Amino acid sequence: MMLLVSEVSAVAAGVFTTNAVPGEPVVVSKKHIRNGRAQAVICNSGIANVCTGEQGHADALQMCQWTADQVGCQAADVLVCSTGVIGHRLPMDHIQRGIATLGPRLRSSQGADAAGAQAILTTDLVIKTAATSFKLGKKTVRIGGVAKGSGMIAPNMATMLGFLTTDLAISPAMLRASLKRAVNVSFNRISVDEDTSTSDSVLVLANGQAGNRTITAKGAALAAFEKALTEVCKSLAYQVVKDGEGATRVFRVDVQNAASQKDADRVGKTIVASPLVKTAVHGGDPNWGRLVMAVGRSGAKVKPEKLDIFIGDIPVCIGGQPVDHNRTTQRKLVDHMQRKEVYLVVDLHLGQAHSQWFGCDLSRQYVTINADYTT
Amino acid sequence: MMLLVSEVSAVAAGVFTTNAVPGEPVVVSKKHIRNGRAQAVICNSGIANVCTGEQGHADALQMCQWTADQVGCQAADVLVCSTGVIGHRLPMDHIQRGIATLGPRLRSSQGADAAGAQAILTTDLVIKTAATSFKLGKKTVRIGGVAKGSGMIAPNMATMLGFLTTDLAISPAMLRASLKRAVNVSFNRISVDEDTSTSDSVLVLANGQAGNRTITAKGAALAAFEKALTEVCKSLAYQVVKDGEGATRVFRVDVQNAASQKDADRVGKTIVASPLVKTAVHGGDPNWGRLVMAVGRSGAKVKPEKLDIFIGDIPVCIGGQPVDHNRTTQRKLVDHMQRKEVYLVVDLHLGQAHSQWFGCDLSRQYVTINADYTT
Repeated sequence: MMLLVSEVSAVAAGVFTTNAVPGEPVVVSKKHIRNGRAQAVICNSGIANVCTGEQGHADALQMCQWTADQVGCQAADVLVCSTGVIGHRLPMDHIQRGIATLGPRLRSSQGADAAGAQAILTTDLVIKTAATSFKLGKKTVRIGGVAKGSGMIAPNMATMLGFLTTDLAISPAMLRASLKRAVNVSFNRISVDEDTSTSDSVLVLANGQAGNRTITAKGAALAAFEKALTEVCKSLAYQVVKDGEGATRVFRVDVQNAASQKDADRVGKTIVASPLVKTAVHGGDPNWGRLVMAVGRSGAKVKPEKLDIFIGDIPVCIGGQPVDHNRTTQRKLVDHMQRKEVYLVVDLHLGQAHSQWFGCDLSRQYVTINADYTT
Repeated sequence: MMLLVSEVSAVAAGVFTTNAVPGEPVVVSKKHIRNGRAQAVICNSGIANVCTGEQGHADALQMCQWTADQVGCQAADVLVCSTGVIGHRLPMDHIQRGIATLGPRLRSSQGADAAGAQAILTTDLVIKTAATSFKLGKKTVRIGGVAKGSGMIAPNMATMLGFLTTDLAISPAMLRASLKRAVNVSFNRISVDEDTSTSDSVLVLANGQAGNRTITAKGAALAAFEKALTEVCKSLAYQVVKDGEGATRVFRVDVQNAASQKDADRVGKTIVASPLVKTAVHGGDPNWGRLVMAVGRSGAKVKPEKLDIFIGDIPVCIGGQPVDHNRTTQRKLVDHMQRKEVYLVVDLHLGQAHSQWFGCDLSRQYVTINADYTT
């Protein structure tokens, strides 16, 4: 379990799963965050508290109440997250003991907290943390974050859980808008598989202790914050992909010159989620025909005769036709595909929209992990 | 290679891939079938003739011409299909020799033809054929079909190639409409992976030799034909799933009482394509939480508190909450999940729309096959 507490009541914002069967903790947290404030986040891993009905809802509320008792705040100021197996009830006696144990052990930390990052893992192999700071006038503002997630990771809010903290002073509306935009270009642009969890939540608490003039409108201060927040989110998102279930390599997809932003995103999303692209990356195989297939089925506007594809910086398809390579270049292609990080570029030559996405390969190990997860 | 010839010019209809980068054979066949007539189909496997530009287009046309020379018809009466790797040009000298060899070896066959079915396979392990017949008055009408496809199989025209023949007399418009509806409930309702090929084509030739009164409008005769055609398509589609790359089991998903047909299809399609459902099926694991996740992310209207899920005939989730089972029933659940054919039922209790889908499991072998396909 993880308990995250702000010394004072903080401005809070969240982005939650779009799954139509959200977990009870998501339902409760959405309600508690509506007023734009929170002081603590309590999180358990192992059981997701999804499909548990009224009892599950009561259990999520009870977790908030026990946490509030420890922290000395209202239950409505506590956000709750659970991650793990669907369709099981929480072992509430364990949860109660856990919260009672965590309370007295709270300690001050700046930026990322490794113990907290450890506590929220399920099939994750490594902890994911990121931190940064920036200047607002003479004040230094810090941002820290932890995340978990390695399977059930789809471009539509691809994390499972992300917790961000900052000592910035900011209004709820500005924090909400910044978080949404930061998530959109980070956690929303990665894929391990195509599945969207019922528990996905990214939360940010901003407690104002940096002492800056409270940000209440767009401007240079908000831009500086958003840049730093996006950096932290991107770092965490990248770490999630890198630790994707069974992943042996990460691949980056740059979609260039699409007719619209929506089209650029469609192409990127389809490529990073395609099982056939993922297995080709796993095999270290420069089989770019699968990129063509994915571009073609993405729903984006495509003119085959304008389509360019690059692997690394080597063109493999220009104007929709294969490029003949000598043996040295063929070797370079294979070498690039067998790196730990592979770069793929798709240029549609139809407009000016760009989009960058990250995916991991699909390995036998992914199957092994997921064929034997519960029973 | 496969050569399929009707003794006389036949009424013809086709359903083709929706991929925005279709293969050149698809472009040519769509043009040749526009007048509703054809006499022959030529097909090669190994290279798909996709992303090959003007030369690829000329090559597809040349295949039609060579075939026409053998058959004694116009090139415009020949339909052409190629399946295999994308981004390579056809070895036209081999193709020419192949067509020249096939011509003299043509022989009459009724229903399914095993040699033809064999010729069009790529990563397929077994041939797929189906045949049936029905009475129209005193005339017997025969329908036969062969199909290939085992990977790059998504619900959006999930085959790669299907060739159907019948001796029915029918108008082009009626044949086209019947084929579309038959494909919609067969090849469009299966999934091996989520990828849509650039070469998908289902073609039907109806040469009128049964001697029935030509069907030109809706009615009992059309209904009888469509029932038989659908049966053949469903059988072929099922065989495609069963031979899905790396598949060890097939699972059937019955979506019941959805608010609309679109919603029923969304739920079925999402479940049969979900990597996490597919790996659970592979592991023989009754992890129904993954069905909940897939239902929730499908985009269909869902009320969690109304959701029922069954594995075989055993309820595992009723009203959105887990059903407690004793050890005997638990054992039965696992036994069912470890069968060669698994039945999953999702009841949304929101309307009256139903939909049935077929998928196969996701295995390590799928990864192995696709990690090493070209180089």
